[in-house]
Formats: sequence, C-alpha cells, structure tokens
Amino acid sequence: MKFNAVTPKLVDGLSAIVGAEHVLLPAAADDMLRYTHDETEDLRYEPEVVLKPANASEISLIMRFCNENLLPVTPRGAGTGLSGGALAVHKGVVLSTERLNKIIRIDERNLQATVEPGVITQVFQEAVIERGLFYPPDPSSRGSSFLGGNLSESSGGPRAVKYGVTKDYVLNMEVVLPTGEITWTGANVLKNATGYNLTQLMVGSEGTLGIITKIVFKLIPFPPQNLVMLVPFRKEEKACAAVSRIFMAGIVPSALEFMEREAIDWADRYLGFNTKRPADELAHLLIELDGNDMDLLFKDAERVYEVLEQFDVGDILVADTEKQKAELWQLRRNVAHAVKANSIYKEEDTVVPRAELPKLLRGVKEIGEKYNFKSVCYGHAGDGNLHVNIVKGDMSDDDWNNKLPEGIKEIFRLCVELGGTISGEHGIGLVQKPYIGLALNEVQLRLMRGIKELFDPRGILNPGKIF
Amino acid sequence: MKFNAVTPKLVDGLSAIVGAEHVLLPAAADDMLRYTHDETEDLRYEPEVVLKPANASEISLIMRFCNENLLPVTPRGAGTGLSGGALAVHKGVVLSTERLNKIIRIDERNLQATVEPGVITQVFQEAVIERGLFYPPDPSSRGSSFLGGNLSESSGGPRAVKYGVTKDYVLNMEVVLPTGEITWTGANVLKNATGYNLTQLMVGSEGTLGIITKIVFKLIPFPPQNLVMLVPFRKEEKACAAVSRIFMAGIVPSALEFMEREAIDWADRYLGFNTKRPADELAHLLIELDGNDMDLLFKDAERVYEVLEQFDVGDILVADTEKQKAELWQLRRNVAHAVKANSIYKEEDTVVPRAELPKLLRGVKEIGEKYNFKSVCYGHAGDGNLHVNIVKGDMSDDDWNNKLPEGIKEIFRLCVELGGTISGEHGIGLVQKPYIGLALNEVQLRLMRGIKELFDPRGILNPGKIF
Repeated sequence: MKFNAVTPKLVDGLSAIVGAEHVLLPAAADDMLRYTHDETEDLRYEPEVVLKPANASEISLIMRFCNENLLPVTPRGAGTGLSGGALAVHKGVVLSTERLNKIIRIDERNLQATVEPGVITQVFQEAVIERGLFYPPDPSSRGSSFLGGNLSESSGGPRAVKYGVTKDYVLNMEVVLPTGEITWTGANVLKNATGYNLTQLMVGSEGTLGIITKIVFKLIPFPPQNLVMLVPFRKEEKACAAVSRIFMAGIVPSALEFMEREAIDWADRYLGFNTKRPADELAHLLIELDGNDMDLLFKDAERVYEVLEQFDVGDILVADTEKQKAELWQLRRNVAHAVKANSIYKEEDTVVPRAELPKLLRGVKEIGEKYNFKSVCYGHAGDGNLHVNIVKGDMSDDDWNNKLPEGIKEIFRLCVELGGTISGEHGIGLVQKPYIGLALNEVQLRLMRGIKELFDPRGILNPGKIF
Repeated sequence: MKFNAVTPKLVDGLSAIVGAEHVLLPAAADDMLRYTHDETEDLRYEPEVVLKPANASEISLIMRFCNENLLPVTPRGAGTGLSGGALAVHKGVVLSTERLNKIIRIDERNLQATVEPGVITQVFQEAVIERGLFYPPDPSSRGSSFLGGNLSESSGGPRAVKYGVTKDYVLNMEVVLPTGEITWTGANVLKNATGYNLTQLMVGSEGTLGIITKIVFKLIPFPPQNLVMLVPFRKEEKACAAVSRIFMAGIVPSALEFMEREAIDWADRYLGFNTKRPADELAHLLIELDGNDMDLLFKDAERVYEVLEQFDVGDILVADTEKQKAELWQLRRNVAHAVKANSIYKEEDTVVPRAELPKLLRGVKEIGEKYNFKSVCYGHAGDGNLHVNIVKGDMSDDDWNNKLPEGIKEIFRLCVELGGTISGEHGIGLVQKPYIGLALNEVQLRLMRGIKELFDPRGILNPGKIF
C-alpha cells in the first residue's frame, strides 16, 4: 500500500479543520514524543502530524480529507495499549481523541451513561460510583487509559470474571467511518434484534473500522461490600487447578487473579513492600468476593476455604482494612510495571478455557526451557487469561529478535490446541500480527479483510494492524 | 433477484447429499405443512423442497450445490420464530436443522457446553441443571424452540434482565457459510481480542450470513434459591415506573415482567385459572429474585417492598410453593398463546431504555385510539422490552392490511425517539422488514448490505429478510 506524505500544504488543510493550536508537528519534538509510542515493549514510530480534533464533525472532515489525499490515519486514545495499535507504523496522521473527554450524561433512571471516548476509565468509574452505580471493567491501566481505547482493544481487567469485559457494557456508539460518515451503531437498549450487530463489530476492531466519538454504556448497581484474600499455594499448577474448582462449587468471585512467585516478588520489591514470604509458596491467588451483604460474603468465603483446603495452601491472608485491600490490589496491578522496570520484555496475552490453565502454564515453562527464555506469569485466572511476560534479561539481541518468535509461536499454538486464542484483552495490533494465522484460518481472515475493505475502501484507517 | 426453480433433477442432486429419506416434497402435503409457517401471525409459504441434513458436511455440500444452481435456501430451526425469519418467501429449499440435535458435551470443569443447533432450549437447560449449572436464556418458546434459532434471532426471555440474552452466552460457533466453507467464528474462551468479532456478527443475523452447526456456550453456577411475587398496580404507568426504581434501589431481579390487566385476564381464562382479581388492578409486575441464599433474598424482597409502597400497589402475592411459582410463570408465559387463541394478531417487539416504558405504553394506547386498534401489552419490563399484541378482533381486512401499518410505524417512530428500536428479541425477519428504515439509517443499511454480500455473494441464503 502506498500512502502520500503529509506535505506542508496538506498540514494547512488539516489545520484549517482542527485549528493550528491543535496540530503537532515533529519540530515540536518534546510534545510529539508521547505520540510516538504506546506501552508496547520499547517500540517507537514518529507520525508526520498529530491532530487533536474537538468533536465528531471535525473527525469526519479529517477522514474525508485524508481519504481524498490518501493519508494514513492512526487513531489514538491514551496510548496505554499493549499490542501497538496506536503506533503510526505508516507515518501519516495520528488522530488523538484526548479532547473528546466529557462525561455527557449519567442517566440514573435508565442506568446508562453517555461519554466521549477520551474519558479516563477510572474518572468514569469514580463518577458513577458517586451515584451508587458501577462500571465494572477495570484494566490495569485504568488510571490513564481512555474508554474509547478500552473498547477498541476489547479490554478486560480483573472483574471481568464476574462482570464481563468492556464489550459487555456498551449499548451503542457514535462512530466516524473511515469515509467520513457519522453514524450510531445501535440503540440505547439492553436488547436489540434489529439488524446485524455493528456495535460488537466495532468493539475490538482496534481502530481499523472507525473512530468512536460517543459511547453509551450500561451501568449496574454498585455492590457496596467486598472481601479480599491472598492465598499462597505450594505448586503453581495447584493454584490454577483451584480456580475452576471454585466456580464448580457455585461461587463466582468478583476477581480471581493468579500470580506466580516471581510476579509477586517483583511487584513487592518494585513497591518497596519487601514482604517476607515462605520459600515454599510458589504461587498466589488473589480472590475478591463482592455483593450487597457482608454475611453472605462470609458464607461464600467459607465455601471457598473448603475448596482451597484440597489444594495444599499456605496461610490465607484476609484483608481486614481498606488499606490492606488496596495494598493487595496494588501488588497485583504493579506486576507489569515491576517487570518493565527490570528488563525489556514482551507480554503475551494468552487465553484458554479456564480449566486448561495448568497445562498452559506448564507448557509455557517447558517452551521457555527449550528456547532459553525466562517468563513471569500472572493474570486473570478466572477467565483463563494468563499474561506471560517474557523477560529479555541477558538474552542476546539476536536470540530476542530471531529465536524468541519461534518460542512465542509454540506458546500460541498451545493456546489454540487447548481451545484458546492468542489475545484475550490486549488485541493483535502490530506486535501479534505475525502470529494471527495461528489463531485465525483463511476463511476467517478473508471475511475480516472483506469487512475492513467494506468500511475502509482506501485502507487509510490504522493500516498495518491485525492482518 | 431471480432464483431458479427446484427441478426434479436438482432434487435428485440434493437427495444424493442428504439421502432420499431426508427430503420432503410438496406431494407429502401433511408432512410438509409444518415447514410452511412459523409462529408469525398466520403467514404461509410453501417451499419447493425441505432438506434435513445430518451434519455440517452435508450442509456444506447443500450450500455449494445451491450456490451453483442459484437456489434460495431458508434455514429453519423449530419454527417458533415471531418475525417470519424461517419462511421460504422465495420458495426454493428449506434447510431444517432438526437432525442436528445432540448435546455434544457438557464440560463441568470449564463451565462450557458444546451443542448442535437443533437442541431444544429447555432440554439443554434441564441437562445442565442436572449438573448444578445454569443456562439462563429462556424465551417463552423454550419448550420447543431450538438453540440455533435462539441465536439467530438474538432471543431473550424473562431472565435476560439479570443474566443477559442468548448472545451473552455464546463463546464460539461452527458455521457453514453460504458459499459452503465450514469455519468456527471464535475460540472457546471468555475473553477474546483476536480479530473482529465474527461470533457476534453471526448472532442475530437471522440465518442470512451462515448456518450454525455447532455452538459453544458458557454456563454459570445454578442459583438454587428463588422468590416469586405478583404485584398488582392500580395504574399501568405506575407499574412501569416502579421498574426502574427497583434497579435504582440496588436490586437486580432475575425477572421483572409486566402484564397489563387484559394480558393477565386473557392468560387466566386461557389456562382455566379464572382467578378473581379486584377491578381496580390495572397492571401486574411478576418479580423473581434468585441467588444462593434464601435469607438474602428475603432481605432483597424487603427492599423491593419499600420501593413498591410508593406506587399504590394492591395485595402482593408471594408464591409459597413451587406449584404456585409455576402457576405464576404459566400465566406470564401463556399471554401470547391466549391472545393467539382469541384473534388474529400482530406482535410488536418494542424496546426502549427501561425508564421510558411509561411513555411508550401511553403512546401505544394513544396510537391505538387514533388508528382504532386494540392492543394487549406485556413483556420484559426490566429490559424495557414491551410486547405489543395488536388484536384484529372485528377490524376490517382493509384496515388491518392497509391502515394498521401506519399505526405500527407511529409506534416504532416513538420507540426510536425514546432511544429504543423496533425489535428487542424477535428479529426483523419478514414482517418488520418494511419498517427497518425507521430504525436504521442509510449508512447502517449500506454496511449491513455490504456484509451480507461479502458472506453471500449470490444472495441465496434466507433471501428477502431484514432489508
């Protein structure tokens, strides 16, 4: 695919749409810097121009202009992505949604909210909690990630296990198509059997089919009570196996997070907690139960203990205070930061049916031995979603770049064999693109490419991603 | 669109694929009869041939054959649809999935089940309950409807309000495309960020994009306790208004069903219950709470009573026995049968944000007065999904055929104005097709038609439906 360069004349045209003060050029190197990367490894791609439009109308004009002039457009939320979806790999235009940052309406009567895509996830969560409402999706990056980005990558987070992922909370979206038309994708209703599901087609499409400009979310009542416990296991695989047994006992925890020993140790050190843990505790589950009634949670906790007794666990730590709960969550949420602070790494977002987790974990370690890489594993065990952080450490650049991909292929092949796939909540973006053929067959790829062409006939929106 | 007729020679070709004993021709009039209609009004369309293939391979061969010979194919589940999706309006082939009726596997470790599309909804529900598991979607037709049909029409049912609709339980599907390729749509996982969501694109596509041949559902633990109450209101609109207040009080009932007075009376008579009800009780809510713990349900019920006190309710009937619960549910589930037994009718599947229900109900009645039609209204109030049964009664055929559609248009316009749409769980199929332009704009229609063409270049699969 051949795109045009963004000439000064074209910059003028774009400036006329968004206003010169909302245009960034490479000359402004410091300001430009953050638009050259997301949170994926250490990748850097500098766009020719960054645009910060104010609304859907401006985005529509930009898309028409770029279509006409064959300029690639890379949409960007907060840049917290983990698959490189927001990287301008074909240069051209980066279109940032940061100015579309309003919570338009929280509708308590209908338990719905209408927001712009540039609202920070946590800001939205806190705004609805103030009204006694709950927006459950909570990716680790929620303190800075945008809701539009969460939707584009089909983000999850720990509470997905009980409450579902971002896609389960979107009722309707306003989008600007690559060709410039502005349309809603559905209606503001909980059930919709009116035509094809364009809303869910847009969710998880990683900014390749359209630019989200408004979102209508459903909300649920906020469950005011919760109970958090940290459970040490003497074997990693026992921790994984306990996960599906907890569900089989009729309990649906609001979070069920797995951390292998190194994950918790690295996070411990990174946060300066330096907790002393017995040497034989090789893995932990962080379990949260929530609901309206504390007595019921204690009852449920008893049933969880009964299950855990069969798995040779160490001393269970039940958080007594909000501070203690927050610290346990901090540990879990900082594993990726801790790994990143230690080494260059690649994070694989593997996902399998949850009872297959022990096999996946064992397989990852065996593949690591074969290809001589170290991995730190943790993740949303309740969903069968294991984040495999492959640490570069002292691996040579040659091995990292040329040998490791073969190991990653083996991991992904194992996921597919186990009934799973290669991304649960991070997307394919740029970095998993070479592996897409392991997860999707030729028929699926043909349909997806056909859909892409239907939405984006000139292929200008987020080119070079997914397939 | 011009299709070919199914000549005897073509019948031979099709018989060679499925076996002559699995082919029905119009000569076998009695056997053919049930393939000429579904549950939509009194519509009848006779196909040229009915095929009952055994598996995906045979379906694949049928689709290739029909593509080559330009024969229209109408896929059919149990024929319980309410929008005419299974009617062979272009004649040709009806492809029945009735022989694909196996529950292939209930996987208790992963809380998943793999089934064929011809499994009856209730048969599946009961099979999983035996293992302590729960498949919540429960359309009124569950005693005869097929799971494949439920998916195709994006069916709901009373428990959607807490547990979501059919689409929320499907993880993966095997489908045969109109061009004959067999493919899975996703993976057997709870979270999937790997390419576009083909699974959700297929759900609700009313058999126009492919034929479902296997389904992987997620299951949840079965909540063993429930509490059912019937609440009479002196004003219909108060009943509707109470609905959103119950949610605002932090309660998510497992069902929250509305019946206006005539709906419950008709069902009462139809079932021979002949319950005496005070004349001033103009509407009822059937409320179900469920969970693991009866004490908690009683607590929640107290909170529901507190809300209801503000709405001028009559004596609340709390079902004491399983028999009484079953009778209350029988009432609700038989409203449509009762209406059907009384008169030709049209059922509109309106859906709005739930707090707009009072406006919708008032509007329906006003439009009824204007166009001189009577309606019996009931439905899934917790989801904002109101079934409007328009009764022909002594309306002239001319008014029924020519004047009524204008009234229906007004109802649908009102739905859209209120943020809703024209079908919540029945689909568009044949009978709502004339109204699709009220709900979908030109951009949406263009995208949907493009998707249809991508999947079905010759337009042979379920032609004449949706748009």
